Amino acid sequence: MRLLLLSNSTAPGRRYLEHAAGALGDVLSGVRRLVFVPFALADHDGYTARAAEALAAHGVEVSGAHEDDPIKLFNSAQAVFVGGGNTFRLLRELYARELLAPIRDRVAHGTVYIGSSAGTNVACPTIRTTNDMPIVQPPAFEASGLVPFQINPHYLDPVDGDTHMGETREERIEQFLEENDVPVLGMREGTWLHREDSSLALGGATAGARLFRRGAEPEEIKPGADLSGLLETVGRYR
Amino acid sequence: MRLLLLSNSTAPGRRYLEHAAGALGDVLSGVRRLVFVPFALADHDGYTARAAEALAAHGVEVSGAHEDDPIKLFNSAQAVFVGGGNTFRLLRELYARELLAPIRDRVAHGTVYIGSSAGTNVACPTIRTTNDMPIVQPPAFEASGLVPFQINPHYLDPVDGDTHMGETREERIEQFLEENDVPVLGMREGTWLHREDSSLALGGATAGARLFRRGAEPEEIKPGADLSGLLETVGRYR
Repeated sequence: MRLLLLSNSTAPGRRYLEHAAGALGDVLSGVRRLVFVPFALADHDGYTARAAEALAAHGVEVSGAHEDDPIKLFNSAQAVFVGGGNTFRLLRELYARELLAPIRDRVAHGTVYIGSSAGTNVACPTIRTTNDMPIVQPPAFEASGLVPFQINPHYLDPVDGDTHMGETREERIEQFLEENDVPVLGMREGTWLHREDSSLALGGATAGARLFRRGAEPEEIKPGADLSGLLETVGRYR
Repeated sequence: MRLLLLSNSTAPGRRYLEHAAGALGDVLSGVRRLVFVPFALADHDGYTARAAEALAAHGVEVSGAHEDDPIKLFNSAQAVFVGGGNTFRLLRELYARELLAPIRDRVAHGTVYIGSSAGTNVACPTIRTTNDMPIVQPPAFEASGLVPFQINPHYLDPVDGDTHMGETREERIEQFLEENDVPVLGMREGTWLHREDSSLALGGATAGARLFRRGAEPEEIKPGADLSGLLETVGRYR
């Protein structure tokens, strides 16, 4: 199983996916055709064209999952890329088009999975740690479970002196842990996770990630850190 | 029908509910007993004690909805106050304890409704415009519908020069409007809505609110503005 899970797709002042070009090149070696899943945004054609342009540099031909029978597309591709946007809209469409099980199955049999932001959220057991607004109601919060723990993309540290009274990201994750006993990896922007079968490592920006577990102090994770132990997680959701 | 819907419960540097003491005093005139609904936070006793302390200044005796049969409590009270915290957790409990219909019924028959933050979200037709993390899954996103439009509490303006790549609040609400044709009132912190039957007005901080409608430029709303027209909303949810 080969996964690349990006916190975010675009770094400030850089082109779409440019900041992760090296990591993308690694997981896309040997990939000629890729299915892009654009359902987190409203404009499927425009979003697919943007992904196709960014991935052309890697010699990859891109089809949108909305353009043909997606199962046929999956079967002729060596990779699937689930783009970011709104996680609730994305998951609703994955259920409506019955794509969760086929994605899980193809990835188990060697298809490369790339996700960014919402596409990373739906690689978790549930979308319970998304930052997105619940603009539509998917039939369930369960997602594809390509990793057995939760990820919070676009992780943001509390800002000293901020007078806004909404919860900080850390407070939101602590509320998640009050209800669920599952580790949450808060991935700062510019970072990614790379899974090869039973091996899992953090890559990308030096800012790294922050790992939250019930009953423990949060732990700073630096790029290069071996996180394979997280793949042993047995989560308990309420 | 008498409602007071607060964007937030606590202003920076002030005590719980202190910034809204005047508006609370107005709607609580004639109220001797109030039921506090603490289910948005994990600590029901502690949260109810905090509300009781803040409302003692208004001569109001407070019971927690978890302390006794809530229907009995509602029937002996002249007001219900739904406190903030996590909207998904709150709504799950309102379904599990079968409280949505009784609240709707009591408020239609004259019980004062006060909500802050998550308690304001659940006064809308759905929780689709909450800012909270979906830490648990309620059986549905439909809420009590005490107003027929959507509210986004703790509304935040985009920050110039911010390099964070997550969506701004305005972008999130625009995504909501792509899927649903329902007005969204983005209530900046320190503001509140006051409904008396068919009359609705914005109160509180001079920053005011921002009203979003599908296909229209967002509109700035100042405190004192008459928003009664919003009570005629016929929303279309996807």
